[in-house]
Amino acid sequence: MTYGEIAATRLRDIATASVTTEGVTRLPWSSEHRTALAQITTWMEDAGLSVSLDAAGTLCGKSPNPTGKPALLIGSHQDSVPSGGAFDGIMGVALGCLAAKALRDELDDFPFALEVLAFADEEGVRFPTALVGPRALAGTLDPMVLDMRDRDGVSMRDAMARFGIDTDATPATHRAPGTVAGYIEAHIEQGPVLEKHDLPVAAVSAICGISRHEVRITGETGHAGTVPMAGRRDALVAAARIVAGISDAAGRAGELRATVGDLSVRPGAVNAIPAEVTFPLEVRAPDDAARMAFEAETLAKASNICAAAGCRISASRTYVQPAVICDPAMTRAFERAIGEGGTKVLTIPSGATHDASAMADLCPVSMLFIRCRDGVSHRPDEFASAADMDVGISVMIGAIRNLAQGLPKGR
Amino acid sequence: MTYGEIAATRLRDIATASVTTEGVTRLPWSSEHRTALAQITTWMEDAGLSVSLDAAGTLCGKSPNPTGKPALLIGSHQDSVPSGGAFDGIMGVALGCLAAKALRDELDDFPFALEVLAFADEEGVRFPTALVGPRALAGTLDPMVLDMRDRDGVSMRDAMARFGIDTDATPATHRAPGTVAGYIEAHIEQGPVLEKHDLPVAAVSAICGISRHEVRITGETGHAGTVPMAGRRDALVAAARIVAGISDAAGRAGELRATVGDLSVRPGAVNAIPAEVTFPLEVRAPDDAARMAFEAETLAKASNICAAAGCRISASRTYVQPAVICDPAMTRAFERAIGEGGTKVLTIPSGATHDASAMADLCPVSMLFIRCRDGVSHRPDEFASAADMDVGISVMIGAIRNLAQGLPKGR
Repeated sequence: MTYGEIAATRLRDIATASVTTEGVTRLPWSSEHRTALAQITTWMEDAGLSVSLDAAGTLCGKSPNPTGKPALLIGSHQDSVPSGGAFDGIMGVALGCLAAKALRDELDDFPFALEVLAFADEEGVRFPTALVGPRALAGTLDPMVLDMRDRDGVSMRDAMARFGIDTDATPATHRAPGTVAGYIEAHIEQGPVLEKHDLPVAAVSAICGISRHEVRITGETGHAGTVPMAGRRDALVAAARIVAGISDAAGRAGELRATVGDLSVRPGAVNAIPAEVTFPLEVRAPDDAARMAFEAETLAKASNICAAAGCRISASRTYVQPAVICDPAMTRAFERAIGEGGTKVLTIPSGATHDASAMADLCPVSMLFIRCRDGVSHRPDEFASAADMDVGISVMIGAIRNLAQGLPKGR
Repeated sequence: MTYGEIAATRLRDIATASVTTEGVTRLPWSSEHRTALAQITTWMEDAGLSVSLDAAGTLCGKSPNPTGKPALLIGSHQDSVPSGGAFDGIMGVALGCLAAKALRDELDDFPFALEVLAFADEEGVRFPTALVGPRALAGTLDPMVLDMRDRDGVSMRDAMARFGIDTDATPATHRAPGTVAGYIEAHIEQGPVLEKHDLPVAAVSAICGISRHEVRITGETGHAGTVPMAGRRDALVAAARIVAGISDAAGRAGELRATVGDLSVRPGAVNAIPAEVTFPLEVRAPDDAARMAFEAETLAKASNICAAAGCRISASRTYVQPAVICDPAMTRAFERAIGEGGTKVLTIPSGATHDASAMADLCPVSMLFIRCRDGVSHRPDEFASAADMDVGISVMIGAIRNLAQGLPKGR
């Protein structure tokens, strides 16, 4: 059995730790979480790692480290969205364990130890927060989030305590920077780019920054029969010109992505001219300056469109998250390993947020993307092949070896 | 007091026959309807008309007619939408009564008698139908509608019976074509055209035909971060190009009006590419052929836009109502009367449906529009001035005299 086939088998087995039988539903601090950790423990022990649960619920598998070297962390998350797939998150843990297993006899010569991490909660579907594990490690966890409650009124603190965690110790989970060499994460791409390029893996250059604006266009309603076209102040027509323009401009803006994912119309009747339209605008880019310039240009153009249409516009930024630039030396380590394996080297940004986003506050990070079928994730039919995962494990092994030959300094 | 001032006073008084104190709420077969008919009866009697309620609930005020001449009908509706205004519908009844009053001593020389009609229900807000009165007169009333029920489960038949109507006689309300010379109706414009032209009244050329289509655009959803712009099949972007194009094309299409009054997006999340958009398209035009050509062109262009965007489109026609062309000789009678009164002659189509739409199945029809403030209707602040109504009454008087000198043949 190849490492890829072992990963496929393990992922099929752990997928049964799920509330639903179709797809995987595994929320943090649940009995399914506990079942999953028992299986991950066997993966870690099989790799010669010693296993412990930290005070933020992260399962940590540490290689023997008698000389107290800094640790190269390899992680991802164990949880899934409701009716999600068997790969998002958990695949990174499985691949990390198998890479550590393959490298167990070389570690004495490495300038770092290895540690595989299985974070409790990246998806943020049970509590209105996420990334508890990496934030605790990075010292950026707001202790207030422990008081957040799920739909059943259970606080995260109580859920963690019932899981066996001493939540008083959670804030002290923080790692000292000198003890950490870096963080790497393998994850399914969740997009169509690898499939389009017919490649099994890609290095990752950055995790896109995100801005969200709520845009409101105000015109004037009127009877759809009695108001001539010329005198109209139709908020939907103005919004339509803006939405089409955003798509056109983003299409010319390189790696930037801009999306209007929803739109609502008032009064919203078949025979009434729309008086008000609201829509969210989301912009993502690996370059924060490019993202902010795009936002400013988009809103300026939208103002001009509204002025010409006799409408008013207001926009408020509802969310912002800066981009994370992957550590160039670590990304080069991945690229070199990809090339050494005979695969064409492709390096792309991540449009989605990952545990690596929060780990970047602690140490240099980089990622490896594995092709997923049809670019699909968060669905029961999410799928990465054993062959592609096998390439991914080989690349992780190669990248770790490359890093051992010349690891960039930690921050 | 001018006739316009009398109309203003009467409309202020009858506005108290309302469920709501802000604006007018007067549904058919209600106690407010009964109160209104009592007042309209005094208006009719003041004009020398003899009053009766027909079996469709239309209050009919007939001039003396010993020689059995055909009747020129003058009407509109007594009902209002919830929290509507004091002019929509009822103003036409008030102006008709005052025109009849002014002409009472000339009628012996006319080739027609006069009959003022106050229809029960044009707005269709109590029962899911409307135009019961004119349809009964025209013989186009489907008796099944009497079994329709309002929100309280009361059938129209029972509501009419409690109002004192013999509903067995409703189908026989049909007028023989030879007994009717034509139908004219004064109504507030419900649009901004007269205000824009700074004119108190306009003749009406036609009542626009209406088509409604439900349009569905199907693309493909995906993660707003991970799917590059180039590979997207964004249903909202395609819909936006279509909506903007509809507005552009309608703006070049003369008297045609095209409106997308609502739009819904699925899945409708800030970070999900829209997979499906549905919207209603409404097209109105005084020329049915122009309307149908516009629809065909619009749907062909929309198909091209969707093909280029990798989306599918389907459209189904949900409603159609042909245009009613106002009788040219009757409209000329209005135009001549407007010019004789020293007002610039403007003739425009009606974008809204009126009692005249249904009366057109019985006899030649035409209409007169009165300016309303800000083009507003169906709202408490709906308003037509006494001065404008006075011009309207003069024009009605003049038009009826013009018709008396050479009335076009009935159909």
